[in-house]
Amino acid sequence: MKILLRLSYVGTAYCGWQVQKNGMTVQERLQDAVEQVFGKRYAVTGCSRTDSGVHAKVFYCTVETDESVPNIPEDKLPIAINNKLPCDIAVSKAEYVSDDFHARYSVKSKRYEYLIDNGSSRDPFLGGRAWYIGGTSLDEKIMDAAAKNLIGKHDFTSFRAAGSDTQGSIRTVFDAYVRREGDKIIFSVCADGFLYNMVRIMLGTLVGIAKGSVREDISSILKAKDRTRAGMTAPPDGLYLVEVNY
Amino acid sequence: MKILLRLSYVGTAYCGWQVQKNGMTVQERLQDAVEQVFGKRYAVTGCSRTDSGVHAKVFYCTVETDESVPNIPEDKLPIAINNKLPCDIAVSKAEYVSDDFHARYSVKSKRYEYLIDNGSSRDPFLGGRAWYIGGTSLDEKIMDAAAKNLIGKHDFTSFRAAGSDTQGSIRTVFDAYVRREGDKIIFSVCADGFLYNMVRIMLGTLVGIAKGSVREDISSILKAKDRTRAGMTAPPDGLYLVEVNY
Repeated sequence: MKILLRLSYVGTAYCGWQVQKNGMTVQERLQDAVEQVFGKRYAVTGCSRTDSGVHAKVFYCTVETDESVPNIPEDKLPIAINNKLPCDIAVSKAEYVSDDFHARYSVKSKRYEYLIDNGSSRDPFLGGRAWYIGGTSLDEKIMDAAAKNLIGKHDFTSFRAAGSDTQGSIRTVFDAYVRREGDKIIFSVCADGFLYNMVRIMLGTLVGIAKGSVREDISSILKAKDRTRAGMTAPPDGLYLVEVNY
Repeated sequence: MKILLRLSYVGTAYCGWQVQKNGMTVQERLQDAVEQVFGKRYAVTGCSRTDSGVHAKVFYCTVETDESVPNIPEDKLPIAINNKLPCDIAVSKAEYVSDDFHARYSVKSKRYEYLIDNGSSRDPFLGGRAWYIGGTSLDEKIMDAAAKNLIGKHDFTSFRAAGSDTQGSIRTVFDAYVRREGDKIIFSVCADGFLYNMVRIMLGTLVGIAKGSVREDISSILKAKDRTRAGMTAPPDGLYLVEVNY
Protein backbone atom coordinates (compact mmCIF):
# COMPACT_ATOMS: atom_id res chain seq x y z
CA MET A 1 0.00 0.00 0.00
CA LYS A 2 1.11 3.54 -0.69
CA ILE A 3 0.14 6.15 1.88
CA LEU A 4 0.25 9.89 1.16
CA LEU A 5 0.96 11.98 4.27
CA ARG A 6 0.43 15.72 4.55
CA LEU A 7 2.69 17.28 7.15
CA SER A 8 4.19 20.55 8.31
CA TYR A 9 7.40 21.30 10.14
CA VAL A 10 9.55 24.01 11.63
CA GLY A 11 12.87 23.47 9.87
CA THR A 12 15.12 25.29 12.36
CA ALA A 13 16.43 22.16 14.09
CA TYR A 14 16.93 20.12 10.90
CA CYS A 15 19.47 19.74 8.11
CA GLY A 16 16.63 19.92 5.61
CA TRP A 17 14.23 17.21 4.49
CA GLN A 18 16.51 14.62 2.98
CA VAL A 19 18.46 12.09 5.06
CA GLN A 20 22.08 13.21 5.58
CA LYS A 21 25.09 11.40 6.95
CA ASN A 22 25.91 14.20 9.37
CA GLY A 23 22.86 15.72 10.97
CA MET A 24 19.22 15.05 11.76
CA THR A 25 16.68 15.55 8.99
CA VAL A 26 12.89 15.65 8.82
CA GLN A 27 12.84 12.55 6.60
CA GLU A 28 14.81 10.55 9.16
CA ARG A 29 12.55 11.64 12.03
CA LEU A 30 9.53 10.67 9.97
CA GLN A 31 10.95 7.28 8.98
CA ASP A 32 11.68 6.62 12.67
CA ALA A 33 8.10 7.54 13.64
CA VAL A 34 6.57 5.46 10.83
CA GLU A 35 8.75 2.53 11.88
CA GLN A 36 7.46 2.75 15.44
CA VAL A 37 3.87 2.77 14.22
CA PHE A 38 4.18 -0.06 11.67
CA GLY A 39 6.87 -2.09 13.47
CA LYS A 40 8.91 -2.09 10.28
CA ARG A 41 11.14 0.41 8.46
CA TYR A 42 9.59 1.70 5.23
CA ALA A 43 10.91 4.09 2.59
CA VAL A 44 9.51 7.62 2.78
CA THR A 45 9.57 9.78 -0.38
CA GLY A 46 9.18 13.56 -0.12
CA CYS A 47 7.63 16.07 -2.54
CA SER A 48 10.66 18.35 -2.36
CA ARG A 49 14.12 18.67 -0.83
CA THR A 50 13.94 21.62 1.51
CA ASP A 51 17.29 23.00 2.66
CA SER A 52 18.66 23.17 6.16
CA GLY A 53 16.58 25.59 8.26
CA VAL A 54 13.77 25.91 5.71
CA HIS A 55 10.18 25.39 6.94
CA ALA A 56 7.10 23.73 5.48
CA LYS A 57 3.56 24.80 6.26
CA VAL A 58 2.56 22.07 3.82
CA PHE A 59 4.66 19.13 2.73
CA TYR A 60 3.69 15.78 1.24
CA CYS A 61 5.43 12.44 1.35
CA THR A 62 4.53 8.86 0.59
CA VAL A 63 5.19 5.76 2.65
CA GLU A 64 5.36 2.47 0.82
CA THR A 65 4.31 -0.37 3.07
CA ASP A 66 4.32 -4.04 2.16
CA GLU A 67 0.81 -4.48 3.47
CA SER A 68 -1.73 -5.67 0.92
CA VAL A 69 -4.62 -4.15 2.84
CA PRO A 70 -4.60 -1.07 5.12
CA ASN A 71 -4.09 -2.16 8.73
CA ILE A 72 -4.63 1.29 10.20
CA PRO A 73 -7.56 3.47 9.07
CA GLU A 74 -6.58 6.71 7.31
CA ASP A 75 -8.11 8.93 9.98
CA LYS A 76 -6.20 7.24 12.82
CA LEU A 77 -2.77 7.43 11.16
CA PRO A 78 -1.93 11.13 11.78
CA ILE A 79 -2.40 10.87 15.56
CA ALA A 80 -0.54 7.55 15.72
CA ILE A 81 2.45 8.99 13.83
CA ASN A 82 2.36 12.36 15.66
CA ASN A 83 2.67 10.53 18.97
CA LYS A 84 6.09 9.37 17.79
CA LEU A 85 7.22 12.71 16.32
CA PRO A 86 8.94 15.65 18.04
CA CYS A 87 6.79 18.75 18.51
CA ASP A 88 8.29 20.60 15.50
CA ILE A 89 6.89 18.09 12.96
CA ALA A 90 3.24 17.05 12.62
CA VAL A 91 1.19 14.97 10.19
CA SER A 92 -2.24 16.48 9.49
CA LYS A 93 -3.68 14.01 6.97
CA ALA A 94 -3.13 10.50 5.65
CA GLU A 95 -4.62 8.98 2.53
CA TYR A 96 -4.15 5.66 0.74
CA VAL A 97 -3.17 6.36 -2.89
CA SER A 98 -2.58 4.28 -6.00
CA ASP A 99 0.87 2.82 -6.63
CA ASP A 100 1.53 5.04 -9.65
CA PHE A 101 1.27 8.20 -7.55
CA HIS A 102 4.71 9.74 -6.96
CA ALA A 103 5.25 12.27 -4.16
CA ARG A 104 7.77 14.24 -6.23
CA TYR A 105 7.10 13.53 -9.91
CA SER A 106 3.32 13.92 -9.66
CA VAL A 107 3.67 17.50 -8.40
CA LYS A 108 2.18 20.05 -10.85
CA SER A 109 3.22 23.19 -9.00
CA LYS A 110 4.51 24.40 -5.65
CA ARG A 111 4.30 27.70 -3.86
CA TYR A 112 6.96 29.11 -1.54
CA GLU A 113 6.65 32.15 0.67
CA TYR A 114 9.50 34.14 2.13
CA LEU A 115 9.02 36.20 5.28
CA ILE A 116 11.03 39.35 6.06
CA ASP A 117 10.83 40.99 9.49
CA ASN A 118 11.24 44.67 8.58
CA GLY A 119 10.44 46.14 12.01
CA SER A 120 12.53 48.83 13.68
CA SER A 121 13.59 46.14 16.17
CA ARG A 122 13.55 42.40 15.55
CA ASP A 123 10.55 40.34 16.68
CA PRO A 124 11.86 37.51 18.90
CA PHE A 125 8.84 35.37 17.95
CA LEU A 126 10.23 35.39 14.39
CA GLY A 127 13.72 34.27 15.44
CA GLY A 128 14.70 31.52 12.97
CA ARG A 129 11.40 32.10 11.17
CA ALA A 130 12.10 35.28 9.18
CA TRP A 131 15.00 37.30 7.78
CA TYR A 132 15.39 40.36 9.95
CA ILE A 133 16.19 43.45 7.90
CA GLY A 134 16.24 46.49 10.17
CA GLY A 135 17.49 50.03 9.81
CA THR A 136 15.57 50.70 6.64
CA SER A 137 11.96 50.38 5.56
CA LEU A 138 11.95 48.34 2.36
CA ASP A 139 9.60 49.58 -0.35
CA GLU A 140 7.38 46.58 -1.01
CA LYS A 141 5.89 48.25 -4.10
CA ILE A 142 9.30 48.35 -5.79
CA MET A 143 9.84 44.72 -4.81
CA ASP A 144 6.40 43.70 -6.09
CA ALA A 145 6.91 45.44 -9.44
CA ALA A 146 10.27 43.67 -9.85
CA ALA A 147 8.77 40.31 -8.81
CA LYS A 148 6.22 40.54 -11.64
CA ASN A 149 9.11 40.21 -14.12
CA LEU A 150 9.88 36.74 -12.76
CA ILE A 151 6.52 35.46 -14.04
CA GLY A 152 6.64 33.31 -17.19
CA LYS A 153 8.73 30.53 -18.73
CA HIS A 154 12.38 31.48 -18.36
CA ASP A 155 15.87 30.09 -18.08
CA PHE A 156 16.56 30.70 -14.38
CA THR A 157 20.32 30.03 -14.48
CA SER A 158 20.94 33.48 -12.92
CA PHE A 159 18.77 32.42 -9.98
CA ARG A 160 20.37 29.07 -9.31
CA ALA A 161 23.18 28.33 -6.85
CA ALA A 162 26.45 28.32 -8.80
CA GLY A 163 27.84 24.84 -9.35
CA SER A 164 24.53 23.04 -8.71
CA ASP A 165 23.94 19.94 -10.82
CA THR A 166 21.87 20.51 -13.90
CA GLN A 167 18.53 19.01 -14.75
CA GLY A 168 17.65 21.82 -17.08
CA SER A 169 17.24 25.39 -15.93
CA ILE A 170 13.95 26.29 -17.62
CA ARG A 171 11.05 26.72 -15.22
CA THR A 172 7.65 28.38 -15.44
CA VAL A 173 6.71 30.85 -12.73
CA PHE A 174 2.92 31.14 -12.63
CA ASP A 175 2.65 33.85 -10.03
CA ALA A 176 4.96 36.10 -8.00
CA TYR A 177 4.18 39.03 -5.75
CA VAL A 178 5.31 40.94 -2.67
CA ARG A 179 2.97 42.31 -0.02
CA ARG A 180 3.38 44.04 3.32
CA GLU A 181 1.51 43.23 6.56
CA GLY A 182 2.65 45.78 9.13
CA ASP A 183 6.34 45.13 9.79
CA LYS A 184 6.27 41.91 7.78
CA ILE A 185 7.03 41.66 4.07
CA ILE A 186 5.96 38.48 2.29
CA PHE A 187 7.24 37.29 -1.07
CA SER A 188 5.06 34.60 -2.63
CA VAL A 189 6.01 32.61 -5.72
CA CYS A 190 4.35 29.68 -7.48
CA ALA A 191 6.12 27.64 -10.19
CA ASP A 192 6.15 24.22 -11.83
CA GLY A 193 9.52 23.61 -10.23
CA PHE A 194 12.41 25.36 -8.52
CA LEU A 195 16.17 25.20 -9.02
CA TYR A 196 18.58 24.94 -6.10
CA ASN A 197 18.31 28.09 -3.91
CA MET A 198 16.06 29.71 -6.55
CA VAL A 199 13.56 31.36 -4.17
CA ARG A 200 16.28 32.56 -1.82
CA ILE A 201 18.22 34.16 -4.70
CA MET A 202 15.02 35.69 -6.12
CA LEU A 203 14.22 37.24 -2.74
CA GLY A 204 17.81 38.36 -2.19
CA THR A 205 17.64 40.07 -5.58
CA LEU A 206 14.32 41.79 -4.80
CA VAL A 207 15.79 43.10 -1.53
CA GLY A 208 18.88 44.24 -3.43
CA ILE A 209 16.69 46.12 -5.90
CA ALA A 210 14.75 47.80 -3.06
CA LYS A 211 18.00 48.74 -1.30
CA GLY A 212 19.70 49.91 -4.48
CA SER A 213 22.55 47.39 -4.30
CA VAL A 214 21.18 45.53 -7.35
CA ARG A 215 20.83 48.02 -10.18
CA GLU A 216 20.01 45.73 -13.04
CA ASP A 217 16.37 44.83 -13.65
CA ILE A 218 15.03 41.28 -13.40
CA SER A 219 14.59 40.86 -17.18
CA SER A 220 18.21 41.61 -17.99
CA ILE A 221 19.44 39.47 -15.06
CA LEU A 222 17.37 36.58 -16.47
CA LYS A 223 18.79 37.13 -19.98
CA ALA A 224 22.39 37.14 -18.68
CA LYS A 225 22.12 33.50 -17.40
CA ASP A 226 24.82 34.39 -14.91
CA ARG A 227 24.46 33.84 -11.15
CA THR A 228 26.78 36.77 -10.37
CA ARG A 229 24.30 39.26 -11.85
CA ALA A 230 21.54 38.44 -9.33
CA GLY A 231 21.52 39.44 -5.65
CA MET A 232 22.62 37.52 -2.58
CA THR A 233 21.15 34.21 -1.44
CA ALA A 234 18.75 35.09 1.38
CA PRO A 235 19.11 33.07 4.61
CA PRO A 236 16.94 29.94 4.93
CA ASP A 237 15.12 31.18 8.06
CA GLY A 238 12.39 33.08 6.20
CA LEU A 239 11.55 30.40 3.61
CA TYR A 240 8.35 28.34 3.80
CA LEU A 241 6.92 25.75 1.44
CA VAL A 242 3.22 26.65 1.64
CA GLU A 243 1.44 24.87 -1.21
CA VAL A 244 1.93 21.66 -3.20
CA ASN A 245 -0.45 20.98 -6.07
CA TYR A 246 -0.84 17.51 -7.56
CA MET B 1 19.56 57.78 35.48
CA LYS B 2 16.63 55.37 35.25
CA ILE B 3 15.92 53.83 31.87
CA LEU B 4 12.64 52.14 31.00
CA LEU B 5 13.00 49.37 28.44
CA ARG B 6 10.17 47.77 26.49
CA LEU B 7 11.00 44.25 25.40
CA SER B 8 9.47 40.98 24.22
CA TYR B 9 10.65 37.42 24.55
CA VAL B 10 9.90 33.82 23.74
CA GLY B 11 9.96 32.18 27.18
CA THR B 12 10.50 28.59 26.05
CA ALA B 13 14.23 28.49 26.81
CA TYR B 14 14.02 30.34 30.14
CA CYS B 15 13.16 29.62 33.77
CA GLY B 16 10.94 32.70 33.76
CA TRP B 17 11.86 36.34 34.18
CA GLN B 18 13.45 36.47 37.59
CA VAL B 19 17.06 35.42 38.26
CA GLN B 20 17.27 31.86 39.61
CA LYS B 21 20.13 29.91 41.14
CA ASN B 22 19.57 26.94 38.85
CA GLY B 23 18.69 27.95 35.34
CA MET B 24 18.92 30.78 32.85
CA THR B 25 16.35 33.56 33.09
CA VAL B 26 15.39 36.53 30.92
CA GLN B 27 16.45 38.96 33.64
CA GLU B 28 19.94 37.47 33.77
CA ARG B 29 20.32 37.58 29.99
CA LEU B 30 19.22 41.20 30.01
CA GLN B 31 21.54 42.17 32.85
CA ASP B 32 24.42 40.54 30.94
CA ALA B 33 23.53 42.49 27.77
CA VAL B 34 23.16 45.79 29.65
CA GLU B 35 26.52 45.17 31.33
CA GLN B 36 28.18 44.70 27.96
CA VAL B 37 26.69 47.94 26.66
CA PHE B 38 27.43 50.11 29.74
CA GLY B 39 30.62 48.36 30.84
CA LYS B 40 29.18 47.98 34.33
CA ARG B 41 26.62 45.69 35.99
CA TYR B 42 23.36 47.47 36.84
CA ALA B 43 20.21 46.24 38.57
CA VAL B 44 17.30 45.50 36.25
CA THR B 45 13.75 45.57 37.70
CA GLY B 46 10.90 43.87 35.83
CA CYS B 47 7.19 44.72 35.64
CA SER B 48 6.17 41.16 36.45
CA ARG B 49 7.55 37.72 37.30
CA THR B 50 6.61 35.50 34.41
CA ASP B 51 6.94 31.75 35.07
CA SER B 52 9.19 29.29 33.35
CA GLY B 53 8.14 28.86 29.72
CA VAL B 54 5.78 31.86 29.70
CA HIS B 55 6.15 34.44 26.91
CA ALA B 56 5.93 38.21 26.74
CA LYS B 57 4.81 40.12 23.68
CA VAL B 58 5.28 43.21 25.82
CA PHE B 59 7.34 43.47 29.00
CA TYR B 60 8.85 46.49 30.74
CA CYS B 61 11.85 46.76 32.98
CA THR B 62 13.97 49.57 34.35
CA VAL B 63 17.75 49.82 34.47
CA GLU B 64 19.24 52.07 37.14
CA THR B 65 22.56 53.44 36.01
CA ASP B 66 24.87 55.62 38.07
CA GLU B 67 25.26 58.06 35.19
CA SER B 68 24.15 61.62 35.95
CA VAL B 69 23.51 62.37 32.27
CA PRO B 70 22.51 59.94 29.51
CA ASN B 71 25.60 58.70 27.68
CA ILE B 72 23.68 56.81 25.02
CA PRO B 73 20.71 58.42 23.23
CA GLU B 74 17.37 56.70 23.82
CA ASP B 75 16.91 55.76 20.18
CA LYS B 76 20.31 54.03 19.96
CA LEU B 77 19.88 51.90 23.07
CA PRO B 78 17.55 49.16 21.73
CA ILE B 79 19.90 48.23 18.88
CA ALA B 80 22.96 48.38 21.15
CA ILE B 81 21.35 46.05 23.71
CA ASN B 82 19.82 43.74 21.08
CA ASN B 83 23.26 43.16 19.61
CA LYS B 84 24.18 41.53 22.94
CA LEU B 85 20.95 39.53 23.37
CA PRO B 86 20.06 36.06 22.05
CA CYS B 87 17.48 35.99 19.26
CA ASP B 88 14.58 35.05 21.56
CA ILE B 89 14.72 38.36 23.48
CA ALA B 90 14.55 41.85 21.95
CA VAL B 91 14.28 45.41 23.23
CA SER B 92 11.97 47.58 21.10
CA LYS B 93 12.08 50.89 22.98
CA ALA B 94 14.14 52.76 25.59
CA GLU B 95 13.13 55.87 27.48
CA TYR B 96 14.74 57.85 30.30
CA VAL B 97 12.23 58.13 33.17
CA SER B 98 12.11 59.90 36.53
CA ASP B 99 13.59 58.22 39.59
CA ASP B 100 10.20 57.71 41.26
CA PHE B 101 8.96 55.53 38.41
CA HIS B 102 8.84 51.86 39.45
CA ALA B 103 8.66 49.11 36.83
CA ARG B 104 6.43 46.96 39.04
CA TYR B 105 4.64 49.22 41.51
CA SER B 106 3.70 51.86 38.93
CA VAL B 107 1.75 49.28 36.86
CA LYS B 108 -1.99 50.10 36.74
CA SER B 109 -3.10 47.02 34.84
CA LYS B 110 -1.78 44.13 32.78
CA ARG B 111 -3.31 41.94 30.14
CA TYR B 112 -2.46 38.29 29.55
CA GLU B 113 -3.56 36.15 26.65
CA TYR B 114 -3.64 32.38 26.55
CA LEU B 115 -3.45 30.53 23.25
CA ILE B 116 -5.00 27.09 22.69
CA ASP B 117 -4.28 25.10 19.54
CA ASN B 118 -7.58 23.29 19.01
CA GLY B 119 -6.86 21.86 15.55
CA SER B 120 -7.52 18.26 14.56
CA SER B 121 -3.72 17.84 14.47
CA ARG B 122 -1.22 19.99 16.32
CA ASP B 123 0.44 22.92 14.52
CA PRO B 124 4.24 22.48 14.82
CA PHE B 125 4.67 26.26 14.50
CA LEU B 126 2.86 26.54 17.83
CA GLY B 127 5.07 23.98 19.60
CA GLY B 128 5.96 25.53 22.98
CA ARG B 129 3.73 28.50 22.07
CA ALA B 130 0.24 27.11 22.70
CA TRP B 131 -1.56 24.37 24.62
CA TYR B 132 -2.57 21.70 22.15
CA ILE B 133 -6.01 20.31 22.90
CA GLY B 134 -7.00 17.89 20.15
CA GLY B 135 -9.67 15.26 19.80
CA THR B 136 -12.52 17.63 20.63
CA SER B 137 -13.66 21.01 19.38
CA LEU B 138 -13.99 23.26 22.43
CA ASP B 139 -17.06 25.50 22.45
CA GLU B 140 -15.59 28.99 22.76
CA LYS B 141 -19.04 30.46 23.39
CA ILE B 142 -19.42 28.42 26.58
CA MET B 143 -15.90 29.45 27.61
CA ASP B 144 -16.59 33.11 26.85
CA ALA B 145 -19.83 33.12 28.86
CA ALA B 146 -18.00 31.57 31.82
CA ALA B 147 -15.08 34.03 31.48
CA LYS B 148 -17.50 36.95 31.86
CA ASN B 149 -18.12 35.83 35.47
CA LEU B 150 -14.44 36.47 36.29
CA ILE B 151 -14.93 40.21 35.69
CA GLY B 152 -15.10 42.41 38.78
CA LYS B 153 -13.43 42.77 42.17
CA HIS B 154 -13.19 39.32 43.74
CA ASP B 155 -11.22 37.20 46.16
CA PHE B 156 -9.34 34.95 43.73
CA THR B 157 -8.09 32.40 46.29
CA SER B 158 -9.71 29.59 44.24
CA PHE B 159 -7.60 30.69 41.26
CA ARG B 160 -4.26 30.88 43.03
CA ALA B 161 -1.62 28.14 43.25
CA ALA B 162 -2.12 26.33 46.58
CA GLY B 163 0.55 27.23 49.13
CA SER B 164 1.65 30.45 47.41
CA ASP B 165 2.64 33.27 49.76
CA THR B 166 -0.09 35.76 50.46
CA GLN B 167 -0.11 39.44 49.65
CA GLY B 168 -3.86 39.60 49.68
CA SER B 169 -6.02 37.69 47.25
CA ILE B 170 -8.41 40.44 46.14
CA ARG B 171 -7.92 41.54 42.57
CA THR B 172 -10.04 43.43 40.05
CA VAL B 173 -10.53 41.88 36.63
CA PHE B 174 -11.49 44.62 34.19
CA ASP B 175 -12.09 42.49 31.15
CA ALA B 176 -12.13 38.79 30.24
CA TYR B 177 -13.22 37.06 27.07
CA VAL B 178 -12.64 34.05 24.83
CA ARG B 179 -12.60 34.16 21.06
CA ARG B 180 -11.87 31.70 18.26
CA GLU B 181 -9.69 32.33 15.18
CA GLY B 182 -9.92 29.18 13.06
CA ASP B 183 -8.26 26.39 15.04
CA LYS B 184 -6.97 28.83 17.65
CA ILE B 185 -8.82 29.77 20.82
CA ILE B 186 -7.63 32.88 22.66
CA PHE B 187 -8.46 33.78 26.26
CA SER B 188 -7.76 37.42 27.08
CA VAL B 189 -7.86 38.86 30.60
CA CYS B 190 -6.98 42.30 31.96
CA ALA B 191 -6.65 42.99 35.71
CA ASP B 192 -4.98 45.29 38.21
CA GLY B 193 -2.83 42.38 39.30
CA PHE B 194 -2.57 38.61 39.15
CA LEU B 195 -1.96 35.97 41.81
CA TYR B 196 0.49 33.14 41.27
CA ASN B 197 -0.72 30.91 38.38
CA MET B 198 -4.00 32.84 38.27
CA VAL B 199 -4.39 33.04 34.48
CA ARG B 200 -3.34 29.43 33.98
CA ILE B 201 -5.89 28.23 36.56
CA MET B 202 -8.59 30.48 35.06
CA LEU B 203 -7.94 29.02 31.61
CA GLY B 204 -7.73 25.46 32.94
CA THR B 205 -11.11 26.03 34.56
CA LEU B 206 -12.67 27.44 31.38
CA VAL B 207 -11.43 24.41 29.44
CA GLY B 208 -12.81 22.15 32.20
CA ILE B 209 -16.19 23.84 31.92
CA ALA B 210 -16.20 23.41 28.12
CA LYS B 211 -15.21 19.76 28.44
CA GLY B 212 -17.66 19.06 31.27
CA SER B 213 -15.00 18.04 33.79
CA VAL B 214 -15.67 21.21 35.85
CA ARG B 215 -19.38 21.31 36.68
CA GLU B 216 -19.46 24.21 39.10
CA ASP B 217 -19.91 27.70 37.69
CA ILE B 218 -17.28 30.43 38.09
CA SER B 219 -19.30 32.43 40.63
CA SER B 220 -19.59 29.56 43.08
CA ILE B 221 -15.94 28.57 42.56
CA LEU B 222 -14.97 32.17 43.44
CA LYS B 223 -17.19 32.12 46.55
CA ALA B 224 -15.67 28.84 47.76
CA LYS B 225 -12.15 30.38 48.10
CA ASP B 226 -10.79 26.88 47.61
CA ARG B 227 -8.20 25.99 44.96
CA THR B 228 -9.52 22.43 44.65
CA ARG B 229 -12.84 23.68 43.28
CA ALA B 230 -11.27 25.27 40.16
CA GLY B 231 -9.86 23.38 37.17
CA MET B 232 -6.31 22.32 36.38
CA THR B 233 -3.37 24.68 35.98
CA ALA B 234 -2.87 25.02 32.21
CA PRO B 235 0.69 24.54 30.91
CA PRO B 236 2.85 27.68 30.59
CA ASP B 237 3.38 27.26 26.83
CA GLY B 238 0.21 29.14 25.80
CA LEU B 239 0.58 32.11 28.16
CA TYR B 240 1.61 35.56 26.91
CA LEU B 241 1.91 38.88 28.71
CA VAL B 242 0.55 41.21 26.02
CA GLU B 243 -0.13 44.59 27.64
CA VAL B 244 1.27 46.58 30.57
CA ASN B 245 -0.43 49.87 31.44
CA TYR B 246 1.30 52.48 33.61
